[in-house]
Amino acid sequence: MALFKNREEDLKEIGFGTNVYEPNQRLVNKDGTSNVHRRGLPFLESLSFYHSLIAMKWWKFNMLVLSVYLIINLVFAFIYYCIGLEQLGGMVGTTVNEKFWEAFFFSTQSLTTVGYGRLNPVGMGASIAAAVESMMGLMGFALATGLLYGRFSRPVAKILYSNKAIVAPYRGMTGFMVRIANKRKNELIEVEAQLTMSYVANHQGKEVRRFEFLGLELKRVNVLSMTWTIVHPIDDTSPMRDMTPEDFRTKQVELVVMVKGFDESFSQTVYSRSSYRYDEIEFGAKFVPLVSPGQKGSVVVALDKIHDYEKAELQVYS
Amino acid sequence: MALFKNREEDLKEIGFGTNVYEPNQRLVNKDGTSNVHRRGLPFLESLSFYHSLIAMKWWKFNMLVLSVYLIINLVFAFIYYCIGLEQLGGMVGTTVNEKFWEAFFFSTQSLTTVGYGRLNPVGMGASIAAAVESMMGLMGFALATGLLYGRFSRPVAKILYSNKAIVAPYRGMTGFMVRIANKRKNELIEVEAQLTMSYVANHQGKEVRRFEFLGLELKRVNVLSMTWTIVHPIDDTSPMRDMTPEDFRTKQVELVVMVKGFDESFSQTVYSRSSYRYDEIEFGAKFVPLVSPGQKGSVVVALDKIHDYEKAELQVYS
Amino acid sequence: MALFKNREEDLKEIGFGTNVYEPNQRLVNKDGTSNVHRRGLPFLESLSFYHSLIAMKWWKFNMLVLSVYLIINLVFAFIYYCIGLEQLGGMVGTTVNEKFWEAFFFSTQSLTTVGYGRLNPVGMGASIAAAVESMMGLMGFALATGLLYGRFSRPVAKILYSNKAIVAPYRGMTGFMVRIANKRKNELIEVEAQLTMSYVANHQGKEVRRFEFLGLELKRVNVLSMTWTIVHPIDDTSPMRDMTPEDFRTKQVELVVMVKGFDESFSQTVYSRSSYRYDEIEFGAKFVPLVSPGQKGSVVVALDKIHDYEKAELQVYS
Amino acid sequence: MALFKNREEDLKEIGFGTNVYEPNQRLVNKDGTSNVHRRGLPFLESLSFYHSLIAMKWWKFNMLVLSVYLIINLVFAFIYYCIGLEQLGGMVGTTVNEKFWEAFFFSTQSLTTVGYGRLNPVGMGASIAAAVESMMGLMGFALATGLLYGRFSRPVAKILYSNKAIVAPYRGMTGFMVRIANKRKNELIEVEAQLTMSYVANHQGKEVRRFEFLGLELKRVNVLSMTWTIVHPIDDTSPMRDMTPEDFRTKQVELVVMVKGFDESFSQTVYSRSSYRYDEIEFGAKFVPLVSPGQKGSVVVALDKIHDYEKAELQVYS
Repeated sequence: MALFKNREEDLKEIGFGTNVYEPNQRLVNKDGTSNVHRRGLPFLESLSFYHSLIAMKWWKFNMLVLSVYLIINLVFAFIYYCIGLEQLGGMVGTTVNEKFWEAFFFSTQSLTTVGYGRLNPVGMGASIAAAVESMMGLMGFALATGLLYGRFSRPVAKILYSNKAIVAPYRGMTGFMVRIANKRKNELIEVEAQLTMSYVANHQGKEVRRFEFLGLELKRVNVLSMTWTIVHPIDDTSPMRDMTPEDFRTKQVELVVMVKGFDESFSQTVYSRSSYRYDEIEFGAKFVPLVSPGQKGSVVVALDKIHDYEKAELQVYS
Repeated sequence: MALFKNREEDLKEIGFGTNVYEPNQRLVNKDGTSNVHRRGLPFLESLSFYHSLIAMKWWKFNMLVLSVYLIINLVFAFIYYCIGLEQLGGMVGTTVNEKFWEAFFFSTQSLTTVGYGRLNPVGMGASIAAAVESMMGLMGFALATGLLYGRFSRPVAKILYSNKAIVAPYRGMTGFMVRIANKRKNELIEVEAQLTMSYVANHQGKEVRRFEFLGLELKRVNVLSMTWTIVHPIDDTSPMRDMTPEDFRTKQVELVVMVKGFDESFSQTVYSRSSYRYDEIEFGAKFVPLVSPGQKGSVVVALDKIHDYEKAELQVYS
Repeated sequence: MALFKNREEDLKEIGFGTNVYEPNQRLVNKDGTSNVHRRGLPFLESLSFYHSLIAMKWWKFNMLVLSVYLIINLVFAFIYYCIGLEQLGGMVGTTVNEKFWEAFFFSTQSLTTVGYGRLNPVGMGASIAAAVESMMGLMGFALATGLLYGRFSRPVAKILYSNKAIVAPYRGMTGFMVRIANKRKNELIEVEAQLTMSYVANHQGKEVRRFEFLGLELKRVNVLSMTWTIVHPIDDTSPMRDMTPEDFRTKQVELVVMVKGFDESFSQTVYSRSSYRYDEIEFGAKFVPLVSPGQKGSVVVALDKIHDYEKAELQVYS
Repeated sequence: MALFKNREEDLKEIGFGTNVYEPNQRLVNKDGTSNVHRRGLPFLESLSFYHSLIAMKWWKFNMLVLSVYLIINLVFAFIYYCIGLEQLGGMVGTTVNEKFWEAFFFSTQSLTTVGYGRLNPVGMGASIAAAVESMMGLMGFALATGLLYGRFSRPVAKILYSNKAIVAPYRGMTGFMVRIANKRKNELIEVEAQLTMSYVANHQGKEVRRFEFLGLELKRVNVLSMTWTIVHPIDDTSPMRDMTPEDFRTKQVELVVMVKGFDESFSQTVYSRSSYRYDEIEFGAKFVPLVSPGQKGSVVVALDKIHDYEKAELQVYS
């Protein structure tokens, strides 16, 4: 029985395993990505075409679209050149160079289906190439439509996390606190938070990573309209009880915050993560208030103050 | 221990905090939006391009599309003008003014890819500009496709709430009641309701906002085909017990209703909110029935009567 | 206290209320729609443009698209006629009638952006009209793209229900059984069922509708690959205990089946409903087996036999 | 009462029923599909047009699109031929054969809406056909847009399962283990696993299939960034307790693994299944570690080693 009890305790984890690979290794980066690289798959299998194109930065995406447009037209200009430029009617150029660029522009006019018609295919070869190209053009732009929609319509929670976590006075004792807000204008509803403390412990002479789920004052808010200070009360049952700032450092403590909510604009569940390492925790501080009354009975939240805190005397808990 | 018990009670809330910023401040507007403004983010970061275009009213959206169409064509007409209007073949205009407008219409014909061809690019410069424009046109309309789809396919619950909440006779005691119905023709299923009472109380000489989740007669219906009268029985455990209409006013009571359901047409979960302030509650009334037998064994729901109530003697509960 | 106990029992329901509006009224139709009409909303508010276009039958949708195409082109042909047909270059027709139809076809060529160019706008008026029309064309087909995608991508569970429910011998007692299967080729996973019995009872001299949730032998299957016989064991706790076929009739019993699952092809949760009235229940029968071994260790499910049952002696439960 | 206890135990299942149709029959294939064929529906009803086009392999899909493009153009070329080729202006061909192919290319130019215009409809008949064709073209490519988007945006979990399950030493006893990882670059979060053991038992002289849900060391990980070794501890309560490899064979044991997670790129819940038959279980082995420290405090997961295991002495549990 003791065995089982033990086992369960040891095995609390969140997906990063219990091995310590390096001192001061960070599990979750500030932006919520995992500090893990997966390797060893065949190149094609690990490729996720759609996902890459969706997650790519805008300027990269636009450059890519332009480049592909340029390359396809060069390729087709070359094809028309090989077929014979006399199969394109309406040319005005006289040198080969001029004619090649006319073929290039004929290609752009076919691919985009604008088809002015001054330039037009006359022979069989050019007609086939143009038929294929205009169809490729439509399919390509069908793809572009899907990608653009996919890029825009992907719900991504933009949760603003306070730069630092703080250990603050809290109801006659102390609490570990993180402050979050919604950066977007849309409403996040049914927002839940989970706070996990990871630390390094000694198990049979070997360093192992341990995980503790921290109890929260409030696990869920119905609407994240204002800011939410997520509070873990450091009470008798808290694994942070009696830990000094020095202990946080030696135990390589990392606090992983996971936030989950429902985005009303996109009608989908969204997730967000961040993490606070021991050197991102301020002991003896409290967050500065940032809500003030607005016009006509509304309230105003000053999101630029979300990181602000001021010194505060920690009360000794007893 | 008492400390903890206390803590939990104090902290019931739904995301609006416990501070009172102004007398008679409303948390949730009748249309379900929060009465909160988030400020202080850099302009670009707070911008949510897609979300704004999706949530914009139809006439604004159409005006925007038309304006963008007009502006892009004016810009390109100007570009063709700068490149040299002699690079556009097929012009019939003779004055500069006429030629400019022909360049403008050439631009519209390129952007929409209609490309009649009477007007067509002859020189290198105009050809490049036209190749870029027709491609921008396709990408732009790809974007428009995504936006139109996004606008139409966004599931939005259209819940009809009775204008007033009532305190009505209910099974030998009294009940707090709100009546809702689905405005749309589609079915809402697995519909759940939550009723939260917010009121202002005095805590250590300071006004604080308190929240109470109200117990419901029925928390969920499988299908919201008819109307649903959400009932909070004012029994011994109700925070409304023994409260007079005057108490509702002095305590600045606000009832927040949250409704959640699954929209079968869109296959997505939808949320809806509304709120009733003390001055939107009718004491001693009952809702007028609005369901009547229809043809062939069906029933008819008269949605226009959803707000109707009539006087009713409240029974004293004892 | 008894009051409360009572109250909870009385209020079990699934969204149809407890009133009896007509004898033998059916709550849920065989195809799962509710037997309810919502009326009284202003026409525009109750209109759900997108939803109607999505749910419309295919032939109606195609007819609508064709009609709109025809009408828009007629309207624009008329506009070009009013502007003056001399503003359209390239006409070959000589009579007014011929010219009108050329304007009509010029309109189709602009709206679809095919723009051959023999016919092309020369004057200012026709150019503006054509610029507007080709843009409308692109927006219209953007809309069509969204609608077509919406029509195809809407996940709809196609659950096949046995025509009749049966009361069958079951493990030394009897059970109420319904047999379902997935009509589609895709997998339905995490499928849950709920069985609710509605019946009419006498409450203080008035007929009221009562609802009972029936306990199931198995509430969920992980994969609905084969058929699933949903069984309510008629044991001591069952509301069907000791009810004769005659009781089913006089109490106007209706069994509502609700099925919920996750459609792997569409990655979305889908719902399905059906209902069995007293006259759709067979007493003393059992379902005919329909699974047989197939090739290479697979099994074959004969969906055409899903409704088949044969007589079976009911064992008296004691 | 014993009856009921019995019943519940007998009825644990996952959707495949309890009948044994063939010796060594497999319920779930390695790729997660069910080993079941549903037959007997009318052809049209079982057809799922969209689903087939979405799930089709890429080369098949492309071939299909090309074929349809070819066929439609041949059909329209024939229609123009029937109407009379003199109704198409701008032809340069002289033989009937040449003219037919010009009609074919006119068709491609209409369908893709490229409409160069050298070839253009002059008579009424050809104009009508071209108006219909260009509209069909736009609708067809609208469809293609939807399909391409549907194909790309369908979230499919690509979970990598170890080829073999192993029975390994585990905390002073033994454990049944399967190792999984995410093949994709995106994050899978809130990942849950379920392990079901199916085996054939003798019930009243007849072979029946039994199912047991196996307890797991850890049922869920928050993020599947690394690999996850799903462990069923073979303790006193395990149905695998005291079973020899020979028992696994005679009882035709099959282990079904179900994994569920939330795909952050697609914002949707995804499912994955696999199965291990008795001959895919290695007794007395342990998985080779595959995580190693990477650069800058990150860790590297070598996915190509996921199947690797080495011999390990099983400790006798007592």
